Amino acid sequence: MIARSLRRLVYAGQTQCACKRLVNLKPSNNVQNTLRRFTVFDPDGKPMSKNALKKQQKEAEKAAKKAQRLAEQNEAAKQAEADDISKDFYGDMKMIQSTEKLDRVLVPVGDITSASAEKDIWIRGRLHTSRGTGKQCFIVVRHQQWTVQGLVFVGEAISKQMVKFCANITKESIIDVFGVVKTVEQKIESCTQSDVEIHIKKIFVVSKAAAQLPLQIEDASRPELEDGKLGEAGRARVNLDTRLDNRILDLRTTTKQAIFRLQAGVCRLFRETLTNKGFCEIHSPKIISAASEGGANVFTVSYFKRSAFLAQSPQLYKQMAIAADFDKVFTTGAVFRAEDSNTHRHLTEFVGLDLEMAFRYHYHEVLQVIGDMFIAMFKGLRENYQTEIQTVGRQYPAEPFKFLEPSLILQYPEAVKMLNDAGVEMQDNEDLSTPNEKLLGRLVRQKYDTDYYILDKYPLEVRPFYTMPDPENPKWSNSYDMFMRGEEILSGAQRIHDPEFLTERAKAHGIDIKTIEAYIDSFRYGCPPHAGGGIGMERVTMLYLGLHNVRSASLFPRDPKRLTP
Amino acid sequence: MIARSLRRLVYAGQTQCACKRLVNLKPSNNVQNTLRRFTVFDPDGKPMSKNALKKQQKEAEKAAKKAQRLAEQNEAAKQAEADDISKDFYGDMKMIQSTEKLDRVLVPVGDITSASAEKDIWIRGRLHTSRGTGKQCFIVVRHQQWTVQGLVFVGEAISKQMVKFCANITKESIIDVFGVVKTVEQKIESCTQSDVEIHIKKIFVVSKAAAQLPLQIEDASRPELEDGKLGEAGRARVNLDTRLDNRILDLRTTTKQAIFRLQAGVCRLFRETLTNKGFCEIHSPKIISAASEGGANVFTVSYFKRSAFLAQSPQLYKQMAIAADFDKVFTTGAVFRAEDSNTHRHLTEFVGLDLEMAFRYHYHEVLQVIGDMFIAMFKGLRENYQTEIQTVGRQYPAEPFKFLEPSLILQYPEAVKMLNDAGVEMQDNEDLSTPNEKLLGRLVRQKYDTDYYILDKYPLEVRPFYTMPDPENPKWSNSYDMFMRGEEILSGAQRIHDPEFLTERAKAHGIDIKTIEAYIDSFRYGCPPHAGGGIGMERVTMLYLGLHNVRSASLFPRDPKRLTP
Repeated sequence: MIARSLRRLVYAGQTQCACKRLVNLKPSNNVQNTLRRFTVFDPDGKPMSKNALKKQQKEAEKAAKKAQRLAEQNEAAKQAEADDISKDFYGDMKMIQSTEKLDRVLVPVGDITSASAEKDIWIRGRLHTSRGTGKQCFIVVRHQQWTVQGLVFVGEAISKQMVKFCANITKESIIDVFGVVKTVEQKIESCTQSDVEIHIKKIFVVSKAAAQLPLQIEDASRPELEDGKLGEAGRARVNLDTRLDNRILDLRTTTKQAIFRLQAGVCRLFRETLTNKGFCEIHSPKIISAASEGGANVFTVSYFKRSAFLAQSPQLYKQMAIAADFDKVFTTGAVFRAEDSNTHRHLTEFVGLDLEMAFRYHYHEVLQVIGDMFIAMFKGLRENYQTEIQTVGRQYPAEPFKFLEPSLILQYPEAVKMLNDAGVEMQDNEDLSTPNEKLLGRLVRQKYDTDYYILDKYPLEVRPFYTMPDPENPKWSNSYDMFMRGEEILSGAQRIHDPEFLTERAKAHGIDIKTIEAYIDSFRYGCPPHAGGGIGMERVTMLYLGLHNVRSASLFPRDPKRLTP
Repeated sequence: MIARSLRRLVYAGQTQCACKRLVNLKPSNNVQNTLRRFTVFDPDGKPMSKNALKKQQKEAEKAAKKAQRLAEQNEAAKQAEADDISKDFYGDMKMIQSTEKLDRVLVPVGDITSASAEKDIWIRGRLHTSRGTGKQCFIVVRHQQWTVQGLVFVGEAISKQMVKFCANITKESIIDVFGVVKTVEQKIESCTQSDVEIHIKKIFVVSKAAAQLPLQIEDASRPELEDGKLGEAGRARVNLDTRLDNRILDLRTTTKQAIFRLQAGVCRLFRETLTNKGFCEIHSPKIISAASEGGANVFTVSYFKRSAFLAQSPQLYKQMAIAADFDKVFTTGAVFRAEDSNTHRHLTEFVGLDLEMAFRYHYHEVLQVIGDMFIAMFKGLRENYQTEIQTVGRQYPAEPFKFLEPSLILQYPEAVKMLNDAGVEMQDNEDLSTPNEKLLGRLVRQKYDTDYYILDKYPLEVRPFYTMPDPENPKWSNSYDMFMRGEEILSGAQRIHDPEFLTERAKAHGIDIKTIEAYIDSFRYGCPPHAGGGIGMERVTMLYLGLHNVRSASLFPRDPKRLTP
């Protein structure tokens, strides 16, 4: 019997296969003898040489040994499973397909405190890190901005197998964990829930992550300095492109979670403040028939059998809403700039927070409303998003954002004088360059102790044709910019609401009147005086938090080189 | 002197010009005599015939008479102005250029009630209508949804000239009016402020409207029946294209003002309800690199040197936000469909109110949240926008919108049975046609007395590949639509969160896996089970108010044929 089996075995190529059927077979001297008694033929029917035979014999022995080992392991596993006291307390969960309506409460990780001590709870989160030491395994479970330590150790109800399973869960897998909350003597510095840990009784994988991650959450979470260098020397860094290429992983860092929660607050506070002031939300079309603002830097769209454009701002539509009696309007939505600018603060698509308001007699009524809105926003952020601000600050250290109440309003010539005094050579009718804006921001902070201010009365010649000139001196205009940490975040003005004067000003700018007829016509049926402005949402988030790149404040940023994900 | 002047006069072509300089000259016999004493030459130096001379003489007399008349009028006007006791109380205001910060309170028209009786107030509004009868002039001043009657009559402080000025103000001009509020004995049915009128003391035009309006606000405000016909026979109607071509005028009607104020409420309630439930607002890119959902009906954009597309929905990005741990997200923004559908309910660009939510064990957790959100929205609209609802109802009569609390949830086979019972021949795995949806809406209203319901468990084969099949029976799926007045307003489902199963389902749909690799990869690093849906904002507004065309609920609608204004 053994001999017959081995005869089959020695045909090369079948070894592997045969050994599976021979799991209980042990090579012995009998086998050696058996082999000696035969002339052995190869698969083509030729007698085999001694060396070939020896080689085959060795392979057979190896195969048999392997088979035996496998069999033993198999047996042990079967036995172990039968003996596994924890076998129902861990494992991969079947894909959740809404089979049952479990009445189980999943406690948010951020809610686990010493108040829950000694209580059994279920939590769901990601396996952030794990460290197994044979008989025990420490894991950190992460949910959004919050982390808690969990631990399994071999004991009465916990098998070695369960600990091993736990240690082998791939990072970033989503797990359901059941355990008892225990207070800890020494604070767990690596977790947000530092007073407690969970002694795990059950652990199931809800959704498994691939073993290889394109970036490590820990690496993506390390503190960064202004120039993008890491604060901790020698540690792995994740560059911006890797982050953006693998955005869903990067967004899982507590920092990014905090940034985008705060950004939701920026929008909410913008809308709430204005709604409370009687503003009406509107929605302006993004696909437009004529390129606004002269046709430069505009994306073209194929629109059925013709061409159209993507709106660079909702300004015309806001103004039409004013001409249509909505009085005070705001809109939040995508705006598009086909500008090939590859800087830290330019995006080709961003979210505009725009507002426009009819006023009674002076555009400062509007300036006041916008200024107050910013203060309400800054206060709301400071009061409601302190956790987020501090979380972000750990990775991107920044001075807390400072502002004055009421808003500091500087006149343009005043600002130019400050720059002149600081050694900058420029005339008071010149526009501010980006470096000069930055410098001015520092000078204003030194002098007034604020990161936010309004610059009023820009030179008429540096503003668009529809800007209302100053009534006292046409060198100036009724226009303003607003700044955060030395960068422009809002640009606005009183608009010309008189069609004849608008035509005159357009001509003075050398604009072909035909191309803007529809715009001018909007004011032919009576229009109240009005002013407004547009805010870049991502910039507000970036500058409020002191981030270094606007892409950090855009969920899925678009720039001339990036269209994915 | 006279003769010399007349010599100049008789050269044809100069008559008109010369008469301006001769305003005090009267033709007399002396002139006749003077003319006879000369041989008169024409401009070419030839002597003129008798007839020609007579003709010229007549013209000269006519010109002189006209000059005299003008002079008299001029004089009278000067005298009148000097005598005009009201001359400082009316007129065209200089263009408001923010010259002064007037401390004047402008009372909103909607706030003028009998409580202000006998008080002097300033108001600003549009001249809605005016009716002058020589010594008095009635005007209606409109501000947004509100109107009030004003009246000027010749008296101690009011001159005839002022009344005339008032009667001549072009409709839709913006005016500042100062006067005393008087209660009236008989209600003024044509005004929203029916208990009072204003006895005007001062009136100034802030912004003049062109005399010719492309549509009359009154015509655009008349009641319309479902088929677009007017309720009042014989009155002028304004068709949809005229409305949309002159949108800023159309939007001034009280109906449109009310529609868009209510629509702002739809958005606000959507966001507030979800924010209170822990949702985080996100912003998804509109320019995308790959055509979502297979590439049909997608607009192409030139993106620097390559091509890109406009997102048909934020779905992939919402799902990525879920995979990135945001757990519960919503987004409101433009979505684009390059679909050549010219119906009452299709737009090529509309506002999507989208949400996506990770759930614990069953997608009904999400269904519940969406259902509750709708109920909160409907209640919020009913409670806070009653004026708007009634205003719209006057032009577009509709039954008040009915809903049940909690939401009525029907199973798909149940709905098919209702249709079968009503004589519709269809299988329970067929999709609902638009007419069947409409009919089902009526059947549901008859049976359950609700205009809003949820249809759960759609046949798997009529849903997209990423829809999670029902775990009990793969004929069905974990997907749902929501309806208002028999029209779909939300479509949603549990999405497949397992990359292998997603691949399998995509293959079953015959989709080339390569084209959706990025989508599938989003789920490779662990993703919680999740479900969501997308709502068409304009449709919600249209159907809540019972309007007949989605364009009425889009500020500046876009369809295959319309790109302007």
